[in-house]
Amino acid sequence: MVKTKNINKNAFDILRQRINIIIHGVNTPAGKLFDLVLLFIILLSVMLVLLETVENIDKRFHDILIVAEWVITIFFTFEYFLRIISTRKPLQYIFSFYGLIDLISILPMYLSFFIPNTKILSVVRALRLLRLFRILNLGNFTGQATELKLALNASRTKITVFVYFVCIISVLLGAVMYVVESPESGFTSIPTSIYWCIVTLTTVGYGDIAPITTLGKFIASFIMILGYGIIAVPTGIVTAQIANSKNKRKLFAPNCPNCNSQPLADDARYCSKCGTKLT
Amino acid sequence: MVKTKNINKNAFDILRQRINIIIHGVNTPAGKLFDLVLLFIILLSVMLVLLETVENIDKRFHDILIVAEWVITIFFTFEYFLRIISTRKPLQYIFSFYGLIDLISILPMYLSFFIPNTKILSVVRALRLLRLFRILNLGNFTGQATELKLALNASRTKITVFVYFVCIISVLLGAVMYVVESPESGFTSIPTSIYWCIVTLTTVGYGDIAPITTLGKFIASFIMILGYGIIAVPTGIVTAQIANSKNKRKLFAPNCPNCNSQPLADDARYCSKCGTKLT
Amino acid sequence: MVKTKNINKNAFDILRQRINIIIHGVNTPAGKLFDLVLLFIILLSVMLVLLETVENIDKRFHDILIVAEWVITIFFTFEYFLRIISTRKPLQYIFSFYGLIDLISILPMYLSFFIPNTKILSVVRALRLLRLFRILNLGNFTGQATELKLALNASRTKITVFVYFVCIISVLLGAVMYVVESPESGFTSIPTSIYWCIVTLTTVGYGDIAPITTLGKFIASFIMILGYGIIAVPTGIVTAQIANSKNKRKLFAPNCPNCNSQPLADDARYCSKCGTKLT
Amino acid sequence: MVKTKNINKNAFDILRQRINIIIHGVNTPAGKLFDLVLLFIILLSVMLVLLETVENIDKRFHDILIVAEWVITIFFTFEYFLRIISTRKPLQYIFSFYGLIDLISILPMYLSFFIPNTKILSVVRALRLLRLFRILNLGNFTGQATELKLALNASRTKITVFVYFVCIISVLLGAVMYVVESPESGFTSIPTSIYWCIVTLTTVGYGDIAPITTLGKFIASFIMILGYGIIAVPTGIVTAQIANSKNKRKLFAPNCPNCNSQPLADDARYCSKCGTKLT
Repeated sequence: MVKTKNINKNAFDILRQRINIIIHGVNTPAGKLFDLVLLFIILLSVMLVLLETVENIDKRFHDILIVAEWVITIFFTFEYFLRIISTRKPLQYIFSFYGLIDLISILPMYLSFFIPNTKILSVVRALRLLRLFRILNLGNFTGQATELKLALNASRTKITVFVYFVCIISVLLGAVMYVVESPESGFTSIPTSIYWCIVTLTTVGYGDIAPITTLGKFIASFIMILGYGIIAVPTGIVTAQIANSKNKRKLFAPNCPNCNSQPLADDARYCSKCGTKLT
Repeated sequence: MVKTKNINKNAFDILRQRINIIIHGVNTPAGKLFDLVLLFIILLSVMLVLLETVENIDKRFHDILIVAEWVITIFFTFEYFLRIISTRKPLQYIFSFYGLIDLISILPMYLSFFIPNTKILSVVRALRLLRLFRILNLGNFTGQATELKLALNASRTKITVFVYFVCIISVLLGAVMYVVESPESGFTSIPTSIYWCIVTLTTVGYGDIAPITTLGKFIASFIMILGYGIIAVPTGIVTAQIANSKNKRKLFAPNCPNCNSQPLADDARYCSKCGTKLT
Repeated sequence: MVKTKNINKNAFDILRQRINIIIHGVNTPAGKLFDLVLLFIILLSVMLVLLETVENIDKRFHDILIVAEWVITIFFTFEYFLRIISTRKPLQYIFSFYGLIDLISILPMYLSFFIPNTKILSVVRALRLLRLFRILNLGNFTGQATELKLALNASRTKITVFVYFVCIISVLLGAVMYVVESPESGFTSIPTSIYWCIVTLTTVGYGDIAPITTLGKFIASFIMILGYGIIAVPTGIVTAQIANSKNKRKLFAPNCPNCNSQPLADDARYCSKCGTKLT
Repeated sequence: MVKTKNINKNAFDILRQRINIIIHGVNTPAGKLFDLVLLFIILLSVMLVLLETVENIDKRFHDILIVAEWVITIFFTFEYFLRIISTRKPLQYIFSFYGLIDLISILPMYLSFFIPNTKILSVVRALRLLRLFRILNLGNFTGQATELKLALNASRTKITVFVYFVCIISVLLGAVMYVVESPESGFTSIPTSIYWCIVTLTTVGYGDIAPITTLGKFIASFIMILGYGIIAVPTGIVTAQIANSKNKRKLFAPNCPNCNSQPLADDARYCSKCGTKLT
């Protein structure tokens, strides 16, 4: 009896390992195939959510869409439980970024039984597409993403300062435009004017609100040229950061053991100053 | 009698110091709490000015908004006098940037008794939000802001030259478009054409004025591609400046022990100013 | 008889060589003249395709346009066969990039006999304008284009990662805007919302769809400032890459006499690949 | 008699020199004052041309504007002849850039007697505002402008290649959009589609023409993201160039006479490699 239990436990362990390899693994063919199929289904499920909101398509294919949606939801639910079962630390998975995304991806469909209009929430499953980076790990996609993230992180303080300034400028210029322009041209309140100011500063320029008085146009021109100059700032910050991190990457090669000078490239085999062989 | 006065003076001095620490200080818990509360109230007061201009909200909550506005104004007035009293050099504060902002933040409400439509001026209190940088001093926000300011200052001449060129180009191209396009498409005068030209060059593109003739569209396409190339210039200037100031900071080599000047590279072995050997 | 054949063959060979020099050559005056004339005719033929779609012009000059189109098509057909005959490896030309373009440039006219509305396809002959680079080879246009291509190629992975993120962000924010905004303001479905989100993030801002609710405008402002920051990323990537490739080219130091590899700095005294002393 | 002539000639010479110093000179107070007054009058005359096209202003102040225009034209004519007389090489001035601009600035008014609607040409006098750089020479405006010009000149070939590619892409994508979209949405001909494509690629986005079909919106999204990536290219080119010219400026200091290493700054007084004093 004890033995059977052991065997059962072992059999379960082996099964769990197998599932683990297929679901969590990337390096095995089975794991890779599973990831690719999953990615395709996620893409399909995101498409379904999008298409359901298009009136013409929803009218014609309503039933098919609903069935497809339920099939995918049940598949995702099954996958979610498999993921929990197969890992040794279920709680770690459940409360991880991907675990929460996986849960939010399936919940809305079940919720839609009780609370209407919650189905739209399942669009967050688009975040599951971030798995692509894990799957395409073979290339150095992840490395590139990390590098970008580092550069952005390093520039974060500067960009925060910058955005803060932009907001204060928008409030002030928005108030000025509200006073200058009449409500007929769309500047009905200061918040609307601030919205217009951000639309203009960022060079988006919808045109739903546009100055009509001469003074308003003059101030708007000033704001645009200001925005023109301002757009240079975050670009400059991020560029300098990326160029910097690029330079830093070169330094991973060890220094010359003879003259201690820095090698000029990661693949340098001889010191460029004294000719000593680098190891 | 003299002694009492002295004691009084001392008591007043101590009170002034206490207030000074709370209002002007950042490093004590009380001063920090005060700054945070103040920041919240400033934010609230800016929101009030914005919301008063939204018709629906003003209609429904008119009385509440007015009362809140007065409460805040009186609080700000009280704070303004406390600031004057608590500092040893009141005039220096009054005529400082923040002192003037603080005054302009409260005056409009009192002015609105005598002159209508001046209340809107109190939106300048948004500038008081710049205090945030002082409060968040713990991080290196101020340092970052200074760095940005230095980079922008260093690029100022180049950017001025650039803006001047943009203005002359806009006048010339604006006149050309005025001749080419008919008034029906919105090009009613040269100033309006110049406004359109700036809207186009800065890639804002409202669409309130847009060319309709073939030649006009052709010239507009030329202006857009020109603007595309032109936008690269300020970006290039600021980026080169930021990257430059970054490079200067990167030097971890110690300063010269003789003349204290910064070494120009990490691998400098001799001070480039006085020739002292660096260790 | 055999001799005559030989002579004939030789005569044909010489003719082929002559044609080859004129058509494929760039360095001879005749070849250059041919290329310039060809470029002019290609430009003319592209103009014809464009003008045919302008209603007013098509109405007035319909017959002239058709005749001109046929003259050019026959000229191109003739040129195509000359190119095949004159080269020693006809298949290599036929399946090359330019060979396929040359074929697609003439086919649509003949196809338009059997299948209507295929004539528009002949617009691909615009791609033949890329020959300009070969003709202007005297300057270093090709070198510049190659450098640009290399810089873009090197940044490709980073830009792919970036575009992928932009797409996921657009899907999520598009869904949010669909929920927040009513269909009256143009957000009729999630795909439309995603389209709007891309229009906003890229700072194009048509204004055909624009938020009208307060919350929608607030989220839109957030998206714009986000896009403002995001636009800095590809710029930073490409700039760092171009600056990098520029630094690499700057080296005027001679290549290693032993292994012919490029020295990594102007002041390199030893080859970093094989350790040979550089003179 | 001869003497009188000599004296006369001398007197004329002295007068010419005086005028020369005032008109062409910058360094004397009189010359500077003249330039400032001239700049003000040029600015005024440009304003006049602009204001004449504004209907309301022209109606009310028609006579004043005409008189002012004539006063300024006569003043400019007088100044033009003084410039010719005062210089030793009149032809050199007449056919110089500024000489031609000066002539074109006054001709249109006289021409307007014979040919109507030529008065608008006098807007070219805006180009005379470029003199500002000469006047403000005291600062290093000219140096900055020259630096910008050099950076742009050096990037010219790359930018030409780039603009050429953008044009070919616009033709191809414009044709695609013409086929995909119906004329109702504004895509009435291929040239119009190309215009729309340039408006979109440069992120201007008027919105006068915008896709309405799903496929059209999809292609438009692709074009926008493409434009997003493309805008990075000229920015990268110019930035790398400016950063480069900044680096090159450092190299004007002579190399170390002992070890021949490059000084790291223009104001370096000692070689940072071997400590030798730089002369």
